[in-house]
Amino acid sequence: MTRTVIESKSKTVIIGFDEPFAVIGERINPTGRKKLAAELELGDFSTVERDAIEQVACGANILDINSGAVFSNKMAEDPRYADNNFVEPPLMRDLIARIQAIVDVPLCIDSSVPDALEAGLEMAEGRPLLNSVTGEEERLERVLPLVKKYNVPVVAIANDDTGISEDPDVRFAVAKRIVERAADFGIPAHDIVVDPLVMPIGAMRTAGQQVFTLVRRLRDELGVNTTCGASNVSFGLPQRHGINAAFLPMAIGAGMTSAIMNPVRLQEMEAIRAANLLMDHDPDGAKWISFSRIVDAVAEGATFAEASTAAAAAGSGGGRRGGGRRRR
Amino acid sequence: MTRTVIESKSKTVIIGFDEPFAVIGERINPTGRKKLAAELELGDFSTVERDAIEQVACGANILDINSGAVFSNKMAEDPRYADNNFVEPPLMRDLIARIQAIVDVPLCIDSSVPDALEAGLEMAEGRPLLNSVTGEEERLERVLPLVKKYNVPVVAIANDDTGISEDPDVRFAVAKRIVERAADFGIPAHDIVVDPLVMPIGAMRTAGQQVFTLVRRLRDELGVNTTCGASNVSFGLPQRHGINAAFLPMAIGAGMTSAIMNPVRLQEMEAIRAANLLMDHDPDGAKWISFSRIVDAVAEGATFAEASTAAAAAGSGGGRRGGGRRRR
Repeated sequence: MTRTVIESKSKTVIIGFDEPFAVIGERINPTGRKKLAAELELGDFSTVERDAIEQVACGANILDINSGAVFSNKMAEDPRYADNNFVEPPLMRDLIARIQAIVDVPLCIDSSVPDALEAGLEMAEGRPLLNSVTGEEERLERVLPLVKKYNVPVVAIANDDTGISEDPDVRFAVAKRIVERAADFGIPAHDIVVDPLVMPIGAMRTAGQQVFTLVRRLRDELGVNTTCGASNVSFGLPQRHGINAAFLPMAIGAGMTSAIMNPVRLQEMEAIRAANLLMDHDPDGAKWISFSRIVDAVAEGATFAEASTAAAAAGSGGGRRGGGRRRR
Repeated sequence: MTRTVIESKSKTVIIGFDEPFAVIGERINPTGRKKLAAELELGDFSTVERDAIEQVACGANILDINSGAVFSNKMAEDPRYADNNFVEPPLMRDLIARIQAIVDVPLCIDSSVPDALEAGLEMAEGRPLLNSVTGEEERLERVLPLVKKYNVPVVAIANDDTGISEDPDVRFAVAKRIVERAADFGIPAHDIVVDPLVMPIGAMRTAGQQVFTLVRRLRDELGVNTTCGASNVSFGLPQRHGINAAFLPMAIGAGMTSAIMNPVRLQEMEAIRAANLLMDHDPDGAKWISFSRIVDAVAEGATFAEASTAAAAAGSGGGRRGGGRRRR
C-alpha cells in the first residue's frame, strides 16, 4: 500500500491508504492575512508561533508553512521588496526556524517561489513535504530536481500551462504526466501527493462527485496519495463548515488521504476523527474516545482550541516538543 | 437508474440513485419507548401526533410506523393481550389513521407481525413502504405475497434462518436470495430496498467499511436501493451524533439511498443535507441555503425542532398537509 513518509527531527507521519487521514494545518500563510503579513514585516512571529501550537493541539499532523507575504512598507523604501524572489527565501528560513523550535510535527514547505522552497528544504529538519509542483513545464523543470536532490515527497497540483481544467479527465491526465515526469527523475509515485483541485460546489454542481471519482482513479490507477484544499468546496455558500464536514468523510471514503485545512475547527475535525474510526484507522476507538472529551468540554463552553490545548497539556493529545515522545 | 416509488395520498417520494437521500423517520415506535406504549394503551395518540409533525418539519421524507407495543395493564386483565398478533393489527390501523390525517408524507409500515403489516396495507393511502421481509423462509412465504398483492415496495433485511452473519459476503448472499425469491413472485428489484445490516463499530472494527462495500455491491450487482438503521453504527460509543454524522455522508458517497433514523437531530440532518449538495442532488443549492437559515436559528438558541417547525410554517420546509402542494 502507498505510504508517503514525512518527518520532523523527532516525529514521523505517514500519509497512506491504511493510515488515519493526515491533517495539514493551513493557517501559517500570510497570503490572505494582511495583519499577519504586517506582523512578519516587523519581525513579529508571535501570531505564527501561537498558530503553530494551536493547530498542533487541535490535531494537525503536519504544518503548512507558506511564505507568500507582501511587505508593503519595506517595498515603499526598497524596490527589491516588490519581488517575492527577494522576500520569500529569508522569510521561509525564519518561519521554519521559529516553528520547528516550538512544535515537533513535520512541516510542509509552501511557496510559489522555487528559491523559497529550496531555502525551506535547507532549513527544515527531517523529511518535509514540498508544496508544490504543477504540470507547468517551467515548474516541473525547477522543482522536480529539488525533490530528487533533497529526497522529499511533493504535492503535485493538477493544473498545467493551459491553466486549471474544469474537465476532471484533463486534471487526471495532468496528474499522470507529473507522476511520469517525476519517474524520469527517479522520484517514486509514493512520494507524490496529488491535489486533484477541488472546485467550489456553488460554481460547479458536479464538483463533489468530480473529486470523489478523481481520488478513486488517482489511487487505483496511479497508486498515489491525495490531498486538497478542502474548504474550497464550500466557497461562496452559507454554513460552510457543515458542507466541509460532510465533504471530508465522503472524500475519505473515496480514498483521499490528506487535506490542507484549518484544524482549529471542531466541526471539520470531528468529521475526520469519526471518519478515521469508520475506516478502521482508529484501533479500539481510542482516539475517538479521547476526542469525545474535547467535544464534551466544548459543549460546556470552552472553545475548541482551548479544550484541545488543555487536553494536549494533559497528555492525551500531544503537541509541544516533549523529548522525542513517539519517536520512530 | 433504480427508482423506488413511495406515495401518500398526495405526495410522492422516490428513493433512487439520482435522488436526494430519503430520510425515514424512526420515532413512531413504542418498542423502545415504554412511556409511549403506556400512552397508546390508554388510547392517547398525542405523542405520536407530535412526533409525526415534528419529524416531517425536521425533514423526514417518509415516516416509519411501528406497532410493536406491549400493553402491560391490559395483559393483566385479558391474556389475549400477551399476543402481539392480537395487539398489533388494530394498533397499526389506529396509528396510520391518526398519522395520515395530520401529515402528508408517505408511510413505512413496520411490524414483525404479518397481520399488522396487512392491516397497515389496508389502511394506508397511496403506496406505502413495507418494513420488512427477511431471508427467513416463513417470512418470505408470508410477506412476499402481501408485497405482490398490494403492489408496494419492501425493505429486505439481510438475515435469514441462520441469524445475522458477521460475514458481509453472507449478508450479500441473503439479500440476493430475497431479490431472487421476490422475482419469482413477480416483484421487481426496484421495489426492494435492502438493509445490509449495520453493526456497531465499537463491537466490530470493520463495520463501517463492511457497509460501504456492501452498499456498492448491492447497487452495482443487484441494482437495488438500500437503507439501514444508521445510528446502530455508533452504539456504545461516546458522542454518537458525531459518528452518525460522518457515517451518513460516507454511506451516501458509497451509494446508500435511504436510512431509518431520527430526523429531529441537527447534526445528522445537516450531514445529509450537505451530502445531497455534494452528490449534486440539490440543484443550485436551494435546499442547503434554506436549511442554513435553520442552522442559523439554532445557533441563536432555538432547538432544531423549533427552528424547523418555524421554517416549515413559513413555507420554506413543508410538512403539514397543505392542499396538495407538491402533488405529483
